[in-house]
Amino acid sequence: MSNLTITVQELPKGVLTPDHFAARTADMPTPGEGEVLLRTVLMSIDAANRSWMQGATYRDAIKAGDVMATYSIAEVVTSNSPRLQAGDIVGCEGLWAEYITRPAHKVEKLPKVSPLSNLISVYGIAGKTAYHGLVGVGQPMAGETVLVSAAAGSVGGYVGQIARALGCRVVGIAGGPEKCSWVTETLGFDACVDYRDPGFFKALRAACPDGVDVYFDNVGGKILETALFVMNERGRVVCCGAISQYDSAAPEGPRNLPGLVVVKRLRMEGFIVMDFARDDARALRALRHWVGTGQIKVFEDVVEGLENAPAALIGLLAGDNKGKRMVRVAPDPA
Amino acid sequence: MSNLTITVQELPKGVLTPDHFAARTADMPTPGEGEVLLRTVLMSIDAANRSWMQGATYRDAIKAGDVMATYSIAEVVTSNSPRLQAGDIVGCEGLWAEYITRPAHKVEKLPKVSPLSNLISVYGIAGKTAYHGLVGVGQPMAGETVLVSAAAGSVGGYVGQIARALGCRVVGIAGGPEKCSWVTETLGFDACVDYRDPGFFKALRAACPDGVDVYFDNVGGKILETALFVMNERGRVVCCGAISQYDSAAPEGPRNLPGLVVVKRLRMEGFIVMDFARDDARALRALRHWVGTGQIKVFEDVVEGLENAPAALIGLLAGDNKGKRMVRVAPDPA
Repeated sequence: MSNLTITVQELPKGVLTPDHFAARTADMPTPGEGEVLLRTVLMSIDAANRSWMQGATYRDAIKAGDVMATYSIAEVVTSNSPRLQAGDIVGCEGLWAEYITRPAHKVEKLPKVSPLSNLISVYGIAGKTAYHGLVGVGQPMAGETVLVSAAAGSVGGYVGQIARALGCRVVGIAGGPEKCSWVTETLGFDACVDYRDPGFFKALRAACPDGVDVYFDNVGGKILETALFVMNERGRVVCCGAISQYDSAAPEGPRNLPGLVVVKRLRMEGFIVMDFARDDARALRALRHWVGTGQIKVFEDVVEGLENAPAALIGLLAGDNKGKRMVRVAPDPA
Repeated sequence: MSNLTITVQELPKGVLTPDHFAARTADMPTPGEGEVLLRTVLMSIDAANRSWMQGATYRDAIKAGDVMATYSIAEVVTSNSPRLQAGDIVGCEGLWAEYITRPAHKVEKLPKVSPLSNLISVYGIAGKTAYHGLVGVGQPMAGETVLVSAAAGSVGGYVGQIARALGCRVVGIAGGPEKCSWVTETLGFDACVDYRDPGFFKALRAACPDGVDVYFDNVGGKILETALFVMNERGRVVCCGAISQYDSAAPEGPRNLPGLVVVKRLRMEGFIVMDFARDDARALRALRHWVGTGQIKVFEDVVEGLENAPAALIGLLAGDNKGKRMVRVAPDPA
């Protein structure tokens, strides 16, 4: 039996293109003592994947020749460990591959929710990142204004819906009028501003008549720079990512930094979702509650087929997704 | 009787020069009801003075034609208020002028310490800024490494000495080998690195073998960018000012921001000394204690004569001071 994989052929220096990847047919891997053989069902497609190619971050850098890394939802095919058995559903640091092996203690057994895609979207990285960043780092209070960039993206959409549920005024930033309408009409944000519009700054000010108390930054760069101008004193900037910078050979920082941080006494704080693992149970309880009341709507953007993973990631970096993007490698097990 | 004043003739667009100022002889001001006439004794010279010319900050912007603003220590000459009497020593938002009037409730009566210059240095803005920024925002713990830029400056020197008193390893950044030696030998820092040295980054890494837990940033720009690379996970960046940026027409932000803030989960937080006014009594008690034990040495850089105030500020922006810079306008009253 063969195993389709996608490797990083060459590390990108600037914009990521399909040529940086290559499909390879590898041998079926064999699980060792204490390991499991996994069949990949779904792969999360995240802007952070691109940053892994820039160097070591919170994980080792991806090198040329490596099979591309991802977070996967997978089914256990065979198990050489008493911890897991065939048919179990797990989440793990996976690969762009149909089959992988992993030490059993390095994968997390997950509940068999239906559809499994929810384990990647609202109950997975996206929902938990939104909850922990907003609640744990941003600490918004009812009546405050929360601004969110990449508002039509997976994390941004949940941030805004959670902030609304907490009683905040919520303003999104997204690219293009179609996405902005979707953010207000479908996700229920109070307003959404198009960063591609030449009148962006004026529109942003108008959408935030009381200024901004919490800015949830998914993008960095110029949008972060612009957002700093509308922050209120003692505002909080939640640094979740810098999607605008990953695809750039010469990143640019916000030029008003640290000037406005001093003058407005802002707090900017970075986090990654694993930092808040101790609060995951609270997060999941809250997310389930809001999904139940309809205050959170779940949107998923599922690309079919492992072979389409490079295009799915490249498209994500260009902002063409609405909701959490993932790639389906195999159907949900019955 | 006449009153020498120095006005801002023209707002600087780039580097501040003596031509931006003009000396003017004005009439002696007359205090109204509830006001006091003050004779300026000492004027604090701060990098923030330059930022006031860039636009509104935590105070109104300075406009062309205005008498230059400052923080002063002054003696009450005549008082039209029961709150103060002739001979009292006060601190206030003053002007580059021999005499000014102020509403009595807008000035703060101060103890007659000797010399009065200590009210501007260790027991004044410099010492309080260092204490509140380090203790209130940076929250260092014994055994951690604290990095301080503008280490030979007024605030930086106190930050380092306080951090040493709290049991931290303290590394300074200063300009030129002579200043660096002064910082280690006289102020007692564990190490000091010269940012003008081409091997700056390597030297900084070598001076911080355990990384940096708290970076007290007085400068912004490239030095902030470099410091972010040596920060430990969960490190704190205390944003106190951006002296490298005030004199620039095209400020540059750190290009690794927000990238490293996310990856390392840093907290960057700005403050101004007034935010912590409620803790001033604790700060002064601690500062007096450390001055008493010799753990804090007080260095002052006093420029004689109101007419030399422009040169004193311009020189400060170029980094030619060691210790708190101030201008003496009149001798301490007997």
